[in-house]
Amino acid sequence: MSGIVVRNIERADPDVIDGLGACGVATVHEAQGRIGLLGSHLQPRLSGVRIAGSAVTISAPPGDNWMLHVAIEQLRQGDILVLAPTSPSEHGYFGDLLATSAIARGCRGLIIDAGVRDVRDLREMGFPVWSKAVFAQGTVKADLGSVNVPIICAGMEIEAGDVIVADDDGVCVVRRADAADVLKRSLEREAKEEDKRQRLAAGELGLDIYDMRQKLAQMGLKYV
Amino acid sequence: MSGIVVRNIERADPDVIDGLGACGVATVHEAQGRIGLLGSHLQPRLSGVRIAGSAVTISAPPGDNWMLHVAIEQLRQGDILVLAPTSPSEHGYFGDLLATSAIARGCRGLIIDAGVRDVRDLREMGFPVWSKAVFAQGTVKADLGSVNVPIICAGMEIEAGDVIVADDDGVCVVRRADAADVLKRSLEREAKEEDKRQRLAAGELGLDIYDMRQKLAQMGLKYV
Amino acid sequence: MSGIVVRNIERADPDVIDGLGACGVATVHEAQGRIGLLGSHLQPRLSGVRIAGSAVTISAPPGDNWMLHVAIEQLRQGDILVLAPTSPSEHGYFGDLLATSAIARGCRGLIIDAGVRDVRDLREMGFPVWSKAVFAQGTVKADLGSVNVPIICAGMEIEAGDVIVADDDGVCVVRRADAADVLKRSLEREAKEEDKRQRLAAGELGLDIYDMRQKLAQMGLKYV
Amino acid sequence: MSGIVVRNIERADPDVIDGLGACGVATVHEAQGRIGLLGSHLQPRLSGVRIAGSAVTISAPPGDNWMLHVAIEQLRQGDILVLAPTSPSEHGYFGDLLATSAIARGCRGLIIDAGVRDVRDLREMGFPVWSKAVFAQGTVKADLGSVNVPIICAGMEIEAGDVIVADDDGVCVVRRADAADVLKRSLEREAKEEDKRQRLAAGELGLDIYDMRQKLAQMGLKYV
Amino acid sequence: MSGIVVRNIERADPDVIDGLGACGVATVHEAQGRIGLLGSHLQPRLSGVRIAGSAVTISAPPGDNWMLHVAIEQLRQGDILVLAPTSPSEHGYFGDLLATSAIARGCRGLIIDAGVRDVRDLREMGFPVWSKAVFAQGTVKADLGSVNVPIICAGMEIEAGDVIVADDDGVCVVRRADAADVLKRSLEREAKEEDKRQRLAAGELGLDIYDMRQKLAQMGLKYV
Amino acid sequence: MSGIVVRNIERADPDVIDGLGACGVATVHEAQGRIGLLGSHLQPRLSGVRIAGSAVTISAPPGDNWMLHVAIEQLRQGDILVLAPTSPSEHGYFGDLLATSAIARGCRGLIIDAGVRDVRDLREMGFPVWSKAVFAQGTVKADLGSVNVPIICAGMEIEAGDVIVADDDGVCVVRRADAADVLKRSLEREAKEEDKRQRLAAGELGLDIYDMRQKLAQMGLKYV
Repeated sequence: MSGIVVRNIERADPDVIDGLGACGVATVHEAQGRIGLLGSHLQPRLSGVRIAGSAVTISAPPGDNWMLHVAIEQLRQGDILVLAPTSPSEHGYFGDLLATSAIARGCRGLIIDAGVRDVRDLREMGFPVWSKAVFAQGTVKADLGSVNVPIICAGMEIEAGDVIVADDDGVCVVRRADAADVLKRSLEREAKEEDKRQRLAAGELGLDIYDMRQKLAQMGLKYV
Repeated sequence: MSGIVVRNIERADPDVIDGLGACGVATVHEAQGRIGLLGSHLQPRLSGVRIAGSAVTISAPPGDNWMLHVAIEQLRQGDILVLAPTSPSEHGYFGDLLATSAIARGCRGLIIDAGVRDVRDLREMGFPVWSKAVFAQGTVKADLGSVNVPIICAGMEIEAGDVIVADDDGVCVVRRADAADVLKRSLEREAKEEDKRQRLAAGELGLDIYDMRQKLAQMGLKYV
Repeated sequence: MSGIVVRNIERADPDVIDGLGACGVATVHEAQGRIGLLGSHLQPRLSGVRIAGSAVTISAPPGDNWMLHVAIEQLRQGDILVLAPTSPSEHGYFGDLLATSAIARGCRGLIIDAGVRDVRDLREMGFPVWSKAVFAQGTVKADLGSVNVPIICAGMEIEAGDVIVADDDGVCVVRRADAADVLKRSLEREAKEEDKRQRLAAGELGLDIYDMRQKLAQMGLKYV
Repeated sequence: MSGIVVRNIERADPDVIDGLGACGVATVHEAQGRIGLLGSHLQPRLSGVRIAGSAVTISAPPGDNWMLHVAIEQLRQGDILVLAPTSPSEHGYFGDLLATSAIARGCRGLIIDAGVRDVRDLREMGFPVWSKAVFAQGTVKADLGSVNVPIICAGMEIEAGDVIVADDDGVCVVRRADAADVLKRSLEREAKEEDKRQRLAAGELGLDIYDMRQKLAQMGLKYV
Repeated sequence: MSGIVVRNIERADPDVIDGLGACGVATVHEAQGRIGLLGSHLQPRLSGVRIAGSAVTISAPPGDNWMLHVAIEQLRQGDILVLAPTSPSEHGYFGDLLATSAIARGCRGLIIDAGVRDVRDLREMGFPVWSKAVFAQGTVKADLGSVNVPIICAGMEIEAGDVIVADDDGVCVVRRADAADVLKRSLEREAKEEDKRQRLAAGELGLDIYDMRQKLAQMGLKYV
Repeated sequence: MSGIVVRNIERADPDVIDGLGACGVATVHEAQGRIGLLGSHLQPRLSGVRIAGSAVTISAPPGDNWMLHVAIEQLRQGDILVLAPTSPSEHGYFGDLLATSAIARGCRGLIIDAGVRDVRDLREMGFPVWSKAVFAQGTVKADLGSVNVPIICAGMEIEAGDVIVADDDGVCVVRRADAADVLKRSLEREAKEEDKRQRLAAGELGLDIYDMRQKLAQMGLKYV
């Protein structure tokens, strides 16, 4: 079942993707009904960054980064590489040379349920990575994997062309077909939150804004 | 036993609290006899910050952040929110809206043995958080907990009004009644350390400053 | 077997050491045949730093930092302290006073398979540390260990005078006798990589630069 | 997307399922090309057992075991319950009452990426469970999930009716459509292994049976 | 604050204690409102055992088991030793000699948020232990701790004389003053469960026994 | 540095080895001055067993078990296989076929800082294993490692011919040259403990047997 590269994948509308990126993980996750979060063991290696892009997926053997070279050819401007090893690995699959190549192809970042290295260089290049580990241990180029097939990455299924949103809160996937609708709901959510943010900043209480006092009292909350 | 909000809690003297904050966790922990440290799995999400404040404690159901709204009303200038879930949870209980509200009430930070989200926003707002996880997973508002009751947070008992000291080294609790005395001993310790720091910086050895050579020789240390 | 301090250790050539430091962990690790990496649980507490130096090794009892004082006397300009506890410990063995003393003796950093504290101060002093934990819990000065004997630190054997290279990717040890040769190979590797970096940055693909297409096809890779 | 119960699912041939169960996880995993293993954090709570059955899948909210009652109605003789929470949870979703009910419906076991309780009773009843945790913490019955929809359990996608094989080595999933073919290859593998087992038991070496000596010599293995 | 041994502690009624032990952890935890569970990292080292007893608490320095000798003198028939180190430790505090002594004093078991050793002997002696680790690493007898003071063990506060219930599901604490009431509610819960167990064993569904169908339908559960 | 098989290794006296095995890990570890313990993450997969033997060491690439076949040829009656991967791996390096072969060569067990599989078979065969993981994930036979060279296994250096002692408490290594002396001290320790065991079993207190009361009082222990 490995050894396959899917060349033509569909992608969501670029404006929708950018819109989702601007909303960020927490908002998008809420807006699509609290689904799509990847495991919290994926940590940002460059903080303060918020990206979105189309997933170019990679299923790779443990400790073998050959398919990354294959995947980079499939990148288009605005894509994000998403790699899942076929069994657990902390090897450093990705470093400054691959980042140089990925950036040259328009790649916006890497999500990898394994390790990376050259993180100082990656930070200097401004290339964002969410990974399970930082580990200099090298990989081989010995066995085939696949590119742009469905993968399970950090507990979540991801298909090529799905929209990945990532920031300091983690990583979230939005199905390509749902992207426009999720963006719409994310923006609505943001609009509502903006109003509340101003009221809260002015010292109004959530207890009053959300009208919680009566329900709390009914449930038996006692002030002593 | 849940569903209680204690409204009037006693707090330590504001100058004592600020003094403890200036000393920092390692010094305060030593000065009070090496007690009071919370578990090292609580990690600072905003680095380089040193705070102290009075604990407003929250006992919350797993994955349910309703009591945070209740607790925020109880905040006074200089307080710190301290939340322990009643069973382990990594959900993101706290994000930018709650931070906005907490800041408006004079809150200095959050200690939480669970997850937070919107950490990029929290950093931009300069609101310090020590948490077990960063995870965008949302919470519900379904069940009651309690506010300002004694809680066990990251392995340490904390009562409302106890002084919390937190910095890049972690989090330490000082009993309210002991705060003034612990500050006095912390300052004495700092004074002693300052003298040693200067001597060490000048190249003098700890072996000589602390007069260790004879004892080491007696215990059998051999130079070869 | 403890209670020994080896005073005169051999060190590698200072220029070789500095050369290895400039290459960094990932390159050095590759150049010496993918050996020498310490466990990835050692995390940098000051990011963006790349150092190399001669190991002054410390075997210390759990929760007892006495030998650090002994070791600091053995430091020469350009050395790195490397501490392994004789059984697992997360105590904070090292803080700002010891760092002040180590810096005064020309020490470039600390590698410790245990905890440190005062990390805000260490960052302000620019003293780099790679540790297993940050924990304010204090240590005692009760039992002997040894200095400059062979130790196992984070899964790797380290002898006094071995060259330690450390950066954001982790920590790598180079045997003293191999240092010059490893530097030569590291520089060769860097030279080769520089050429490739430029070609990759210009958009050329690794598939072509490394001539992978034929081998991938032979192994059965299918584009669909 | 939750709140769905799929009632009529297809199952593999009972004899094929039983055949896979007799082969066990390691053999089946190898025979189907080294895919399908669930994460090794799922541990058997009853050792020495080897089962296979058709997956009745459950997607459940964290800390909420309501859907288990719904799923039990969907069980047929020979099925295995497979539960994945929608966000990480260690709560004890399953205990002796649910086991009593599941057994009455012909259920062969439970795979759960969360916690269970009453494990002493489960052992006495001989009901096998593979879980992430044992934890007495109770669950609620407050929110809907789904039954017999595709889930991601311990890093692997599982569809209702897929064949689950589980033993002391862990848990493996075989796609329903592949089950007969995987059984055939598993049996072939077993046959081959039986011959080798006898030769190895008689003292013959793998080096000779698998004809490895020449290849090892070519690769440079040196005996000293 | 250490160096104290409280000699005369109150204990719950022996029949109540034994009754709680017969009910087991999951039932008692539910009956007292889902509180009192210690962390699930405490694992039974002798399986299939269900015990209850009065806590003789020990606060011990890390890696120092001296206070166990002091505590053993305080044991009465039916007590359980409960040890929490003042900072995290996996050392083997307890082995066959201490178990011999504890048994001679009528001790029913040990709960320890640290390590034990000689576990084969402990199993042969039938002495049940719940511990965080098994580790042969020895301890010293150098510093004082306290006996029969309140401790935090595995995240839960325990006072001397509280009732400890432990089995394969973990460890639960019942406040001494609540013990009789919790037993009453535990027995009521068991009685109710027994009726349900028989109906479930006969094939009746929880959906019907608990009358869930209507509520599930109202919440929108759809069968397809 | 890999690709080497050392054929003639020295072993300790068989009676000494068996004597150490009879003493067990905790006693041997104490008798040799509390050194030699491997990390507690190595867990026994067959409980209740106590073994000792001469180490046949294996340095193996991650996920590659080829060298096990090479090592098995080097086994003599009474040896123990000890495998350390060159980078972290949880793959199942060892299963029933290799166990069959190892047993036929007189092997007493396996210590492996990685995974094993077929554990049900291993238990039935009575072949004891201490491993980091149980995981059915298969390995390849692609790269060379070395046999009977010094390795670092679970944090401890082990040389071929060193004596390995393993039981439910973990794994301990005794240097070959020290084995006879360590046995002598272990037996002395056991003799002393036997006397104490009888006195403790008769109800005498450690406080009195070890004459601790005066020292505790001097240190300030207070009975209240």
